[in-house]
Amino acid sequence: MKPLLGLTAGLLFFCGHAAADCLTRGTGDMGIVIERAAGSLQVVDTTAHKALFRVEGLGDLSHASAVYSRDGRYAYIFGRDGGVTKVDILCGKIVTRVVQAGNSIGGAISQDGQLIAVSNYEPGGVKIFSAQDLSLIADIPATGIIDRDGKQKGSKTVGLVDAPGQRFAVSLYDSGEAWVIEMKNPTAPKIQRYTQIGALPYDALVTPDGRYYISGLFGQDGLSLLDLWHPETPPRIILQGYGRGEQMLPVYKMPHLEGWAMAGNRAFLPAVGHHEVLVVRQDDWVETGRVKVHGQPVFVMARPDGRQVWVNFAFPDNDTIQVIDTESLVVVKTLKTGKGALHMEFSPRGEEVWISVRDKDEVQVYDTDSMELMYKLPVDKPSGIFFTSRAHKTGL
Amino acid sequence: MKPLLGLTAGLLFFCGHAAADCLTRGTGDMGIVIERAAGSLQVVDTTAHKALFRVEGLGDLSHASAVYSRDGRYAYIFGRDGGVTKVDILCGKIVTRVVQAGNSIGGAISQDGQLIAVSNYEPGGVKIFSAQDLSLIADIPATGIIDRDGKQKGSKTVGLVDAPGQRFAVSLYDSGEAWVIEMKNPTAPKIQRYTQIGALPYDALVTPDGRYYISGLFGQDGLSLLDLWHPETPPRIILQGYGRGEQMLPVYKMPHLEGWAMAGNRAFLPAVGHHEVLVVRQDDWVETGRVKVHGQPVFVMARPDGRQVWVNFAFPDNDTIQVIDTESLVVVKTLKTGKGALHMEFSPRGEEVWISVRDKDEVQVYDTDSMELMYKLPVDKPSGIFFTSRAHKTGL
Ligand code: DHE
Ligand code: DHE
Repeated sequence: MKPLLGLTAGLLFFCGHAAADCLTRGTGDMGIVIERAAGSLQVVDTTAHKALFRVEGLGDLSHASAVYSRDGRYAYIFGRDGGVTKVDILCGKIVTRVVQAGNSIGGAISQDGQLIAVSNYEPGGVKIFSAQDLSLIADIPATGIIDRDGKQKGSKTVGLVDAPGQRFAVSLYDSGEAWVIEMKNPTAPKIQRYTQIGALPYDALVTPDGRYYISGLFGQDGLSLLDLWHPETPPRIILQGYGRGEQMLPVYKMPHLEGWAMAGNRAFLPAVGHHEVLVVRQDDWVETGRVKVHGQPVFVMARPDGRQVWVNFAFPDNDTIQVIDTESLVVVKTLKTGKGALHMEFSPRGEEVWISVRDKDEVQVYDTDSMELMYKLPVDKPSGIFFTSRAHKTGL
Repeated sequence: MKPLLGLTAGLLFFCGHAAADCLTRGTGDMGIVIERAAGSLQVVDTTAHKALFRVEGLGDLSHASAVYSRDGRYAYIFGRDGGVTKVDILCGKIVTRVVQAGNSIGGAISQDGQLIAVSNYEPGGVKIFSAQDLSLIADIPATGIIDRDGKQKGSKTVGLVDAPGQRFAVSLYDSGEAWVIEMKNPTAPKIQRYTQIGALPYDALVTPDGRYYISGLFGQDGLSLLDLWHPETPPRIILQGYGRGEQMLPVYKMPHLEGWAMAGNRAFLPAVGHHEVLVVRQDDWVETGRVKVHGQPVFVMARPDGRQVWVNFAFPDNDTIQVIDTESLVVVKTLKTGKGALHMEFSPRGEEVWISVRDKDEVQVYDTDSMELMYKLPVDKPSGIFFTSRAHKTGL
């Protein structure tokens, strides 16, 4: 914990802000970095490349994700322990915190910014809270299933995202469903249930335009695609070769679907179990190419202009990042970051990318044009990085 | 001016902020509305649907545009009189103001947020300023031309945008050029000059991904397209039928190219002189359809999810807004706003659109799902509306 103590002292020295002081500043160039072991986060300034605050007491953040309020001031952090914490990043403090389930995996904010939805493993279901004070607004239990021990329980819910029209979409792992929850009237959720979308959806994404909701399937090859512009048409299976021929893999090796990169008219996605990135035409969801990479890809992220795709890898290759040129499909750079390169976040106009390097206790900032390391920030076991520009993006 | 007095009093009452007080709040849900006659602007809160401040003394704003700093706190407003004003929207006051040319038309902010570039009519050229204090960093004169009176002067510069790689692109009206200005080293701009791109480029846009720079041509049919991924390849003419068969039109009737809507893989653009919106396939820039609309389109703007395109019209049809469904290509709604519907701005996740209605001295806010009028804000002769989410978007 030494570097952290050093950092905290440095913070007090450099910024002169005790955690109780609030900053009067724009929030557009701010972000947070999760400290996965300590259950804390750092608030960062992406212009100055400096930490502003450290916020503690967020529970189990060994796996965490976050969304932002539409003003960019509040981050909602979803922890592994079912905790949802609303953090004021201008004041560096927790506004409110609820532990709303036994085990959760992620959440989303509604189009209008008024609602926070959380997908839970234990007990399975979706809970919807007021973004204001995290009071409960709707509790939507998942389809009941019988588990291996013969006990009745709710299906796990995964891949929860927001969609235009004040909707949320979510996948039900055990029961193989996708639900679209329309929240125009918060006291009367309207739920459209699609059954038999495919076996064991384990995660999902919505395309950046909010049109297609795509669930990854753990129990069969291919992915399930729902066109949210046509709720009358049930989901269909695409990319039937996705994962084909693979033996069942442990879930922790399944690639993250947030990691899909959309560049121009193509999607770049991590192959399942292969050392490859797949190139898919978005018109008809047909695979058009593959790029050989260094290991099993976890996140495959497009620079905002779509010219480059940056890839990180599963253990034991997680000390490496590769950059693919999306036009030539050539790996143009291989970077050695140190072990535990877990997550990447681009600055909104794409000039920089921030990379969490867990085992070095640092976040590294690269210039995406020269692909050179420019800055390092000391962060205790960093994982997810979330910039406030997500406030303005459907599905993030 | 009655409604304004009423508004100011209301502001003091509702928010309790004198213009000197600064707000501690997120900037992500803020914006400005230009008051074109008064030379002032209002700072607005898009969550509360309220004005926060009125800022005066910005010179001639009879035609104005704006960009934002990367933190979202500062708006840079480009006025007709060559004035560039940096406004602190958290404090509702002018930080600094320079009158840098006799007549200007617009500007851009660099990818890294450090530079403000302005394109000038009089004298023609591009000036680049520090975003910090608006001190001059580079003065790039335009190609010299001989005007009608036989006098030597610089070509007008138009359609200035930012592009990835710390670049600006600009078109030269009189000399028919496009220049790409690379500012990695601010003291030594590197300029790539493309000549003979087409006759009289009068405005330009960059696609949202920052790849294609497209100049509208006043002197010939078609548009000039430069692929910024391939600076070695000179621009080529696309959409040769664009404007074909039309007699020369006065410039004030040429559609605004900022008005191009990119929805999925298609662009929707205003026809020149026709009561039509053109649909163009982005792969090969071929026209695939036309939608008949109510008048000569000025701005053709896609809702962020690409499902709808909203269109406003030139005089005498500027009391009308039409909404096109991008899938069926049907006009699904015709709204009567009152005269002088000049500009539209979508909230970043697309749930609302704000419309300036000049002759009613109001901004109208519509729910884009129901297409119903939800709120009205009193604004003195409103024109351009600019939300802080532009801070995160290339070309805006
Ligand atoms: C369903 C799911 C989401 C989407 C949340 C949402 O909807 O907001 C998600 C998001 C995430 C996000 C947020 C992504 C984003 O950009 O929004 C991050 C950084 C992340 C880093 C990791 N995840 Fe994640 N992750 C899983 C599931 C998921 N991870 C797993 O099942 C898995 C494989 C096993 C586990 O232990 O939970 C797993 C392991 C990891 C890691 O090992 C990563 C790389 C490092 C870490 O510290 O946990 N997951
Ligand atoms: C080149 C150009 C730009 C891009 C600026 C930049 O690069 O930042 C622009 C932007 C603009 C923008 C900013 C668009 C944006 O979304 O960024 C707006 C709102 C706007 C509202 C108008 N413009 Fe504009 N406009 C012209 C030119 C331009 N207008 C003209 O030549 C024309 C036709 C004649 C004139 O009087 O200047 C003209 C008339 C108008 C209007 O009549 C409009 C509709 C109402 C008004 O109040 O002026 N123009």
